[in-house]
Amino acid sequence: MRIVAALGGNALLHRGERPDAAVQEANIERVATALAALAHDHELVITHGNGPQVGLLALESAADRSLTAPYPLDLLGAQTEGMIGSLLARTLHNALPGHPIAALVTHTVVRADDPAFDRPTKFVGQVYPRESAELLARRNGWHIAKDGTDWRRVVPSPAPERIVETDTIHELLSGGTLVICAGGGGIPVTADRDTGALTGVEAVIDKDLTAALLAEDLKADFLLILTDVPNVYEGYGTPAQRPVIDATPAQLRGGDFPEGSMGPKAEAAARFVERTGGLAAIGALDAAYEIVHGRSGTLVRPDLTAA
Amino acid sequence: MRIVAALGGNALLHRGERPDAAVQEANIERVATALAALAHDHELVITHGNGPQVGLLALESAADRSLTAPYPLDLLGAQTEGMIGSLLARTLHNALPGHPIAALVTHTVVRADDPAFDRPTKFVGQVYPRESAELLARRNGWHIAKDGTDWRRVVPSPAPERIVETDTIHELLSGGTLVICAGGGGIPVTADRDTGALTGVEAVIDKDLTAALLAEDLKADFLLILTDVPNVYEGYGTPAQRPVIDATPAQLRGGDFPEGSMGPKAEAAARFVERTGGLAAIGALDAAYEIVHGRSGTLVRPDLTAA
Repeated sequence: MRIVAALGGNALLHRGERPDAAVQEANIERVATALAALAHDHELVITHGNGPQVGLLALESAADRSLTAPYPLDLLGAQTEGMIGSLLARTLHNALPGHPIAALVTHTVVRADDPAFDRPTKFVGQVYPRESAELLARRNGWHIAKDGTDWRRVVPSPAPERIVETDTIHELLSGGTLVICAGGGGIPVTADRDTGALTGVEAVIDKDLTAALLAEDLKADFLLILTDVPNVYEGYGTPAQRPVIDATPAQLRGGDFPEGSMGPKAEAAARFVERTGGLAAIGALDAAYEIVHGRSGTLVRPDLTAA
Repeated sequence: MRIVAALGGNALLHRGERPDAAVQEANIERVATALAALAHDHELVITHGNGPQVGLLALESAADRSLTAPYPLDLLGAQTEGMIGSLLARTLHNALPGHPIAALVTHTVVRADDPAFDRPTKFVGQVYPRESAELLARRNGWHIAKDGTDWRRVVPSPAPERIVETDTIHELLSGGTLVICAGGGGIPVTADRDTGALTGVEAVIDKDLTAALLAEDLKADFLLILTDVPNVYEGYGTPAQRPVIDATPAQLRGGDFPEGSMGPKAEAAARFVERTGGLAAIGALDAAYEIVHGRSGTLVRPDLTAA
């Protein structure tokens, strides 16, 4: 089976944790444990978020007085692909001795006229109390929005249209290599309509939507979206809350999700299943193996009763 | 012909230039122009330095008060592989429409007991007047050394022993992909003697020595070391200065090089030619095509008179 697994940016850095290198190095051991068993039995592509990491680098770059201007988000996103790609590659190398592993710098084409450029929605960096967030926003020209009870920087998140390195990923995967790619949804670029020339843009693409596109392009059998909750829930946060064990794309889309990150995950899973007839699931990182074997998570399956 | 080309970190950021993203984006156009013609006719692997870039990120990380400790050099090196890899990949993509291009996050194994860990020699970051450098050294726990007339941070530069991703690079190259890899000499890791487990270490490997190892492992025909001078010189800086047009490894090693970066370049070229019987050359980035065709640079060729 060919599996595309998407890891939340929080897999490396949990909400509220200090963004130290040592913290992320410790957290990533859990990722390797969870995913190594899958790599034994299946073709595996791993993609990952970068929200906390790209936000940290953006702050550091904005504070660097040797620069005329902070580095743009495409280059900072590229930096996170290198760093997180290296952490994942070396940890999986240690968990899977002898297994070929490649972390690929990956670019994702978006539309220059995507309306998301005028409406920033993607959370990056740390959470702050409202007043700190407002101060940082004024100082750095940020947009901010409420994330749970705290505030956080938001940046444009245009829709992924095409992954530039798909053929390379396919070639490596077909040759038996575990591929780590499209981190942070891929480095955002626009493509010139006439020449195809790529240009970096200030954005962070949603990694779950890129994972769905990647899974479709690679003709994957399974899209596995890993997060820090074991299921999608009905009536989340109410007394009637109960886990969804399985759902069709339409049922999943009909769910009433809390603000934040479950919406894009549900949309990504639904889209992949509708377009390909494959399976998707949303569940907990630690349960990755159990989810693929139908013993955990929320399974999203094709609607066989549909016309 | 199979060519490994090594770009100086200065190709993206010249000495004294402000380390802005825009400056590096402009400089990299020159790289693409110089290398695209080679990629038309030959199998091409590109590796690059990261001294100015990793030094900048180290300063930013050291100044980040949200961190318990600055990020280690292996993770900062990984960040530069992502960023420079992306800049090279997208610029070459635009110069070579339709040509498959992959930038790979690459790890290089060094010995934990390499004496270089006790003797930092590799320049990173910007140059400073002596007093500024001494102040920064005290504040950040740096080692510093004289670079030309200025001062600069130095970090350990252990010898490259093995490139972890060699098989993947070989597979991509043999399939017709232009591969960008081993940036900054590769992300430095040690390998546990018993388990082979990889662990990041605080170092920056010499990218020319890694390029020579890579060229040897890939059975390349030509190692092309690109820098900002058109040749190796005899009597450099003296009235008798004259360019070396060609040399055997022994002749090249006998040269009296000024302090700084020509020494490792000469050693890398000599080592590749001795070990493989292939050709190497040292010359100017803009003359890459002419160097490969014998019309520029210093050619290093096997000593056919040797026993």
